[in-house]
Amino acid sequence: MKPLGPPALALLAAASATWAPAPARADEGMWTFNQPPREQIKARYGFSPDDAWLRHVQLASVRLAQGCSGSFVSPTGLVMTNHHCAHSCIEQLSTRERDFVKTGFYAKAEADEVKCPEIEVNQLIEITDVTARIGKATAGLDGQRYNDALKAEQARIEKECATSDDLRCDVVSLFHGGAYNLYKYRRHQDVRLVFAPEFQIAFFGGDPDNFEFPRYDLDVSFLRVYQGGKPAAVSDWFAWSPSGVREGDLTFVTGHPGGTERQLTMAELLYQRAVALPDRLLSLAQLRGELTQFQQRGPEQKRVSNHLLFSVENGFKALRGRFEALSDRGLWDGKVEEERKLREAIARDPGKQAKYGAAFAAIEGALAQQKDLRREYRFLEGGALAGPSELLPIARKLVRGPAELAKPNEKRLREYRDSGLPGLKQSLFSPAPIHDELEVELVRFGLTRLREELGADHPAVRKLLGKESPEEVARRLVSGSKLKDVAVRKQLWDGGARAIEASTDPVIVFARLLDPEARAVRKRFEDGIESVLKKNDELVARARFEVAGAGSYPDATFTLRLSYGAVKGYQDGGREVKPFTTIAGAFERATGRPPFELPESWIKARASLDPKTPMNFCATNDIIGGNSGSPVIDREARVVGLVFDGNIHSLGGEYGFDERLNRMVAVSSEALIEGLAKVYAADRIVKELRPASK
Amino acid sequence: MKPLGPPALALLAAASATWAPAPARADEGMWTFNQPPREQIKARYGFSPDDAWLRHVQLASVRLAQGCSGSFVSPTGLVMTNHHCAHSCIEQLSTRERDFVKTGFYAKAEADEVKCPEIEVNQLIEITDVTARIGKATAGLDGQRYNDALKAEQARIEKECATSDDLRCDVVSLFHGGAYNLYKYRRHQDVRLVFAPEFQIAFFGGDPDNFEFPRYDLDVSFLRVYQGGKPAAVSDWFAWSPSGVREGDLTFVTGHPGGTERQLTMAELLYQRAVALPDRLLSLAQLRGELTQFQQRGPEQKRVSNHLLFSVENGFKALRGRFEALSDRGLWDGKVEEERKLREAIARDPGKQAKYGAAFAAIEGALAQQKDLRREYRFLEGGALAGPSELLPIARKLVRGPAELAKPNEKRLREYRDSGLPGLKQSLFSPAPIHDELEVELVRFGLTRLREELGADHPAVRKLLGKESPEEVARRLVSGSKLKDVAVRKQLWDGGARAIEASTDPVIVFARLLDPEARAVRKRFEDGIESVLKKNDELVARARFEVAGAGSYPDATFTLRLSYGAVKGYQDGGREVKPFTTIAGAFERATGRPPFELPESWIKARASLDPKTPMNFCATNDIIGGNSGSPVIDREARVVGLVFDGNIHSLGGEYGFDERLNRMVAVSSEALIEGLAKVYAADRIVKELRPASK
Repeated sequence: MKPLGPPALALLAAASATWAPAPARADEGMWTFNQPPREQIKARYGFSPDDAWLRHVQLASVRLAQGCSGSFVSPTGLVMTNHHCAHSCIEQLSTRERDFVKTGFYAKAEADEVKCPEIEVNQLIEITDVTARIGKATAGLDGQRYNDALKAEQARIEKECATSDDLRCDVVSLFHGGAYNLYKYRRHQDVRLVFAPEFQIAFFGGDPDNFEFPRYDLDVSFLRVYQGGKPAAVSDWFAWSPSGVREGDLTFVTGHPGGTERQLTMAELLYQRAVALPDRLLSLAQLRGELTQFQQRGPEQKRVSNHLLFSVENGFKALRGRFEALSDRGLWDGKVEEERKLREAIARDPGKQAKYGAAFAAIEGALAQQKDLRREYRFLEGGALAGPSELLPIARKLVRGPAELAKPNEKRLREYRDSGLPGLKQSLFSPAPIHDELEVELVRFGLTRLREELGADHPAVRKLLGKESPEEVARRLVSGSKLKDVAVRKQLWDGGARAIEASTDPVIVFARLLDPEARAVRKRFEDGIESVLKKNDELVARARFEVAGAGSYPDATFTLRLSYGAVKGYQDGGREVKPFTTIAGAFERATGRPPFELPESWIKARASLDPKTPMNFCATNDIIGGNSGSPVIDREARVVGLVFDGNIHSLGGEYGFDERLNRMVAVSSEALIEGLAKVYAADRIVKELRPASK
Repeated sequence: MKPLGPPALALLAAASATWAPAPARADEGMWTFNQPPREQIKARYGFSPDDAWLRHVQLASVRLAQGCSGSFVSPTGLVMTNHHCAHSCIEQLSTRERDFVKTGFYAKAEADEVKCPEIEVNQLIEITDVTARIGKATAGLDGQRYNDALKAEQARIEKECATSDDLRCDVVSLFHGGAYNLYKYRRHQDVRLVFAPEFQIAFFGGDPDNFEFPRYDLDVSFLRVYQGGKPAAVSDWFAWSPSGVREGDLTFVTGHPGGTERQLTMAELLYQRAVALPDRLLSLAQLRGELTQFQQRGPEQKRVSNHLLFSVENGFKALRGRFEALSDRGLWDGKVEEERKLREAIARDPGKQAKYGAAFAAIEGALAQQKDLRREYRFLEGGALAGPSELLPIARKLVRGPAELAKPNEKRLREYRDSGLPGLKQSLFSPAPIHDELEVELVRFGLTRLREELGADHPAVRKLLGKESPEEVARRLVSGSKLKDVAVRKQLWDGGARAIEASTDPVIVFARLLDPEARAVRKRFEDGIESVLKKNDELVARARFEVAGAGSYPDATFTLRLSYGAVKGYQDGGREVKPFTTIAGAFERATGRPPFELPESWIKARASLDPKTPMNFCATNDIIGGNSGSPVIDREARVVGLVFDGNIHSLGGEYGFDERLNRMVAVSSEALIEGLAKVYAADRIVKELRPASK
């Protein structure tokens, strides 16, 4: 399924997400830890998590800042997550000679654990309500002034909270401005790779089976958080279940769903369906084609582009599922009806009409502007030009640094605020290798698409391309740049404005050239469109509170959530899907050809494996992209599985939860132990996970 | 712009097109020659074409059966069309050593004219109304019986008419079954290439400028029709204007618009927007990415895939324009309102309600079924698997031949009817080269997409792939097949059922394997869905006749149409676009880098060219894909230009005509002469076009 890796995040950035409360039904809901659904769980499953349970689960859960979830599974900082969440690290640590994506990785001793260049782990230690403080700062303001005040107050709150580099503080807008909470995390940037199986078994079935069930994947990796050069001692971690789960068992998922859009207005949904999703899908489809062919150049090209292709195919399938969900008449008509009722309730009451009556039209007006501005926004400021390239984003970060850092904290672009700098620096100074041949193709792709979308006569296109072709510019930039060397980046960063202005590095020159137009379009977007959407989405959210009452869960925001459910199969168009697969099933499904090829290690170990061991299972927990790597735990907060996907119906979960069909998909805890012990002889890890094991 | 080349035709086949009368406004309309808009032209431009004028224009117009238009421009069979309409021929005649796409082609003497492997030219000689005869054959029938009766009667009429191989007869459904006309053509399959300029000037500006205006292209080629080994003597041809056109002049376009969908019901439009267009766009986007990267392998790979990439990019941009037109609220709401009025008028009248009231729901029901069946239809029977591959369609034609030819004419699949056989054989026995390396990628692409869309567990997917990967199957088929040899195809065709059954050619084996499933899904589609749509679209069309009255033009059907208009610029979002560009403008726009690179020949000839010569112009004539290669003529039926494109707003012309913005784009007759005379020294052609020239 879907981490929220950098490409996915860039894609998300292009969409305007809105949040507001929804009445929760059945096992629906991604609940915050300060408003847990105690009553719903009690009513449905006869169990009510107490404060100690919740505190323990919160502290044992972690977020991978690049877009995934994970959990502590030992007192010495061992973190369990998906293979696909650590894939970029595994690829970055590989070389032409030693390809850990292919062979897997196992640190036999602690000394063999290797640092991941770009992984940051966050542990949520505190949630504080700051709604009143934000409300005071923005009272009576509109448009750009509203937006400026909101951002400045957020920056101040975050700065006050983040008193050291190992703390991360984010002000989170919940219910689309219905509430603001401060999330305080312990930040870990020394994260090391401990174990990963072969890609073949982690992603058995490949793209054809992605977002499908039944499945047979061992999509796991283990990392370890270090502190002061030693494994971090953690107070809370998840113990391992001795027996796993059975059909019907209550299951919890604790993790970081990236974003849902269950409370968008119809105008916003229409924008998603008609504009935002098609734009992004068409771009991903083309990039997918380019990368597929690029891989045909040879094994090394395949190696260096595998993770990117995975992200692209994964994003493509996820967005296509969303697009199809919005094309479903049933879902659409239901949403139309919901909004009609809300608007009628507002119109009936003069007080409400005065406060909220104009919000819907204001949103529609802002979206009409966004439609016109979107191409320039996506290509000049958003991720569509730089997209998956490595060099262009590095150059932009460097070029903007001096100007931003010279401003007071609350006036800076969000990513340069003190609270954001550790993350920015980690990616800026990452020693991950940059592959010239791939980079040329990605820059060419971005430039060609830029010219296509803005037109050959757009002033920015003329400025960036001059009389060169996109391919020539790409070759010139990549072959002439020294930014592949981290030391050069550090020099430029430390050298400040003078160093940036003096640089003749072609990628820096390119980024300098682009910067004025990019900043201008961002300003137009934030002041004229984003601020209107924020303000009026907040009004719609308040109207919903007033009409329907509060007491639900907010749309997902890549912050820690708890979801509950049960292990359960489903009926899919007449076909009955059982909730469990087995290890035997994996061997039956294997064809010996990618992506249905089992690794040698499994074929060798076959006789020793218990064929009846549950391999994967599905359950009714309400999850979405960003939940990848979440633990599945039982009522005693013991690990019974590892979330790695949702079925095809879970993609519509972006807009609503359908308990009949929507399922999360997990690796069973028993398959994890069986694989670690018998296929990989990773005894050190097995003992750490389950000290009682022999 | 858009010929309706094989890929485009395959794409169209996937859509269900419907036709019905629309009230014509302004310069709107693609009029049939048996119902010309004499009064409208008279009222607007003070000119009324008489019968002799119409007959002359009809006979001087030709169709390129693969999807374009053209015209006779000399008494000895010289045909003018676009470069992009002859591009596949030019590519097929090229070799690694002599690339005519790059260098252009000029037969200095008649003896140097070379036969195009696959071009068929049709000249419309007669139109007969057969509505009554069809109505009698289908009276009182429904579903499969209706469909069978309709097809059988069409086949009988066509067979009676096509008394020799050089006649082609098509029963055409107009106004979506409101009328049936028999179109009788003279068919020419000996068509030779006379002249083509370099691709660089034919498609100057490339994909970025495609469907845009201002433009600077010399998108022309000249072919010659031969009869009995000699240039054909033709009775009607277009003389050349001595002076071209000026702003405001009345212009006619005579040609073969491929298809419009201006009278679809809302349910059908919704299907287009939500399902059909996204499916096709996403597929094209990915193929575009693959071909773009394939071209990076080297110049030879670029050469052999150029035309295909052009078709794909062209189709992509055209369909995207349509998708965006359907996402336009104004157009959509207008259509909703139109249908609401029609349905109200039906509901008000019990007689009409009894006849037509159920048609809309029947259409909606059939589309719901089509949505479920579409993946199997597109991949097993439609063009989505075989797509742009050459070998797979050849094998299918061979495999189906014996079974189909054994049936009576009217029971055969449409393409095997006597009226269709000459075209089928021309493509089957075409000596055009097949490029192994490209073919492998195209077959792999199709198989990968098949597995993706139907799922790895679909019985047909299991049958076709077995335990092999798509890439392995593709390599095995392409490297092991002898079908690249035309003689082998002829042997198999002549050998009948026994030869097909005995063949061990891997592509034939593959096609045999696929055939039962493909036929089954086609039958389900035609009997259960297509028949319902046809029958009920016909009812809606009749209801429209009854409510709004007849007397308009039918949706385009790739049959000869006349459109009228005037040379005229437009306002595009505040920007004023003038109707003419000049030769000087082309030199100004050139950057020296593809696709903005002028050929050497033009740079050398620059001093001799009159810079003020009009290069391209735009006019209000209502055209669409398939009109490529149409002549633009003045009221004296003299050539003043050559249609090669429409502006970006013309793409919405699929669903409606907006005279403020929709423009056709043409090469001026003066630029054609200037180029032929001064750049190419093609004096032989200049004299033939304009005998009065010195």
